[in-house]
Amino acid sequence: MENVTIRILAQQLQLSAATVSKALADSHEISEATKKRVLELANSLNYTPNPYASSLRKKKSKTIAVILPEVADSFFAQVIDGIEAVAQEKGYHVLICLTHERSQKEQAILTEFLGGRADGILLSVTSETQDAAPMRELQAKGIPLVFFDRVCEDIETVRVVTDDYDSSYRATSHLIEGGCRRIALLSISDTLSISRQRIAGYRQALADHQLSFNEEDIISCTHDPIDNLQLLRATLKGASRPDGLIASVEKLVTSIYLACADLQLVIPRDLQVVGFSNLSSAMILQPSLTTVTQPAFEMGKMAATLLFKALANKPYELGEERVVIPSVLIPRGSTMRRPS
Amino acid sequence: MENVTIRILAQQLQLSAATVSKALADSHEISEATKKRVLELANSLNYTPNPYASSLRKKKSKTIAVILPEVADSFFAQVIDGIEAVAQEKGYHVLICLTHERSQKEQAILTEFLGGRADGILLSVTSETQDAAPMRELQAKGIPLVFFDRVCEDIETVRVVTDDYDSSYRATSHLIEGGCRRIALLSISDTLSISRQRIAGYRQALADHQLSFNEEDIISCTHDPIDNLQLLRATLKGASRPDGLIASVEKLVTSIYLACADLQLVIPRDLQVVGFSNLSSAMILQPSLTTVTQPAFEMGKMAATLLFKALANKPYELGEERVVIPSVLIPRGSTMRRPS
Repeated sequence: MENVTIRILAQQLQLSAATVSKALADSHEISEATKKRVLELANSLNYTPNPYASSLRKKKSKTIAVILPEVADSFFAQVIDGIEAVAQEKGYHVLICLTHERSQKEQAILTEFLGGRADGILLSVTSETQDAAPMRELQAKGIPLVFFDRVCEDIETVRVVTDDYDSSYRATSHLIEGGCRRIALLSISDTLSISRQRIAGYRQALADHQLSFNEEDIISCTHDPIDNLQLLRATLKGASRPDGLIASVEKLVTSIYLACADLQLVIPRDLQVVGFSNLSSAMILQPSLTTVTQPAFEMGKMAATLLFKALANKPYELGEERVVIPSVLIPRGSTMRRPS
Repeated sequence: MENVTIRILAQQLQLSAATVSKALADSHEISEATKKRVLELANSLNYTPNPYASSLRKKKSKTIAVILPEVADSFFAQVIDGIEAVAQEKGYHVLICLTHERSQKEQAILTEFLGGRADGILLSVTSETQDAAPMRELQAKGIPLVFFDRVCEDIETVRVVTDDYDSSYRATSHLIEGGCRRIALLSISDTLSISRQRIAGYRQALADHQLSFNEEDIISCTHDPIDNLQLLRATLKGASRPDGLIASVEKLVTSIYLACADLQLVIPRDLQVVGFSNLSSAMILQPSLTTVTQPAFEMGKMAATLLFKALANKPYELGEERVVIPSVLIPRGSTMRRPS
């Protein structure tokens, strides 16, 4: 079936294309009788405006894009829900694009959006991201950019984050107060801003409790569960093994529980565990998992709200701003306070 | 900063816009020397082709869209990974759009894609979807549509599904052979094709084992965890409660474990449970969860492969076809075979 265009409508109605176009846009220049004729034919032929052509005219796509590493993580899934709640209200579509933690993919996606396919961008960078040039290009084109959770410090804009330093400090202190003397921090990146903040909070808590910091207690995990299981088995074997673990990424939790089962280590007796996780199943693990629960939905809502605020102004203004929404430490069965 | 257009490049180089456009498209009509001049200026002014204008010309967006209910479910998250693996190879972008189980939202998204913003669509319908008209419109516009998992039977196209009937039959038989005599099936929709298949498989297994079917053992849950917890508490209370449960949706698992803890029911002694779930944490629940694990990644890969096959032909051909990739029942601690 051939696409019905304004030209085809104009031919059939013996009107000019300009008149049809204005009639469809409900222009005051066109009589009600003509508008009615145009609309009736447009409906009967199933005419759909071409969004590309219409976007060229209006320079608005009524779309925002969310670019993030993955969706197989309850934190990101809940952030998306928060963003969509706001976009829905504003009548905007949300496009979700995944980088799978590859900066090359991220750059390709950002470049794709340079031409105006989305009016604004919400971005959580990959663990590899170093180069801020593609983000600067977007800003130079007048496309506002808001960071959430994982930010790029070189770019001047709004960042919506949680208190990574403080929550890591609280998690570490909670383990120390529960009797842990050697705590390992599992991370997947040491370049990400949030990872660096969490490492800093962890180190400060150790120092404030007169515990020494060992470089080898910062353990770099990968995105492969088999690799992580092997790494954890090696880490948790032997007499000098850690007695506390902080999993700074949700997906590491399964590997920790499996490694403990393999090595016959009982949580929390032999090893206490805190996970940065928003999974509802934390409650039903054996033992239930003490979590740092991040305000994912609220972060998504806030990031989208600030983006729409920027979109309401032309040229937009998004200066340096840092919105911090705190995380909550929820103690459960995987940690305990021993009498000291 | 003003957008650099072909017109601006042409003015500065004292060439026609057509010449600049052809030079940028590497046309054989343009000399190498001119191409070089055009490219140098384009690079130095940071020229980006407008994707809308370029899409209008090429009628190709190099984009496919995935429309699905949610991403906070490991099945859908893994399907997306499978789709992206194929799209990556083909050099296509993937746009993900969420319907949140609302058919109105689904229709709005489908209508949005009528204009060619994506070259093809992969769709898993909402639990409310009844009206196939927007899908037919897409097909009429020459935009191929492939269903995965949740399909709409009225539309002639390719469907990539798993063996919902058989896997539900196997799950029910597994519970009966483990000693269960009253099995409830938790569902979130009775209009979805997959739900109807699962109910049919469950009924057949009951019949084949000479157990009677009770209408009230099909329990309609919602998307709200608090509601589901209350519903489960009510269901699992009292002497005539079920001794087996099949959770046909992953998110119901947490509610089941919590309701059992509240009612001091021990899994699997008092209640055996099978969940349709792809969560890796099924292994570390207490007890570990027997699952029907769906071939999510493979389904995503297959659906995308078939869509790209259609995109390679113009006009595309996607006839009625049903590709079934089987699920696997993985017995774990939440079910047991009692001596009968």
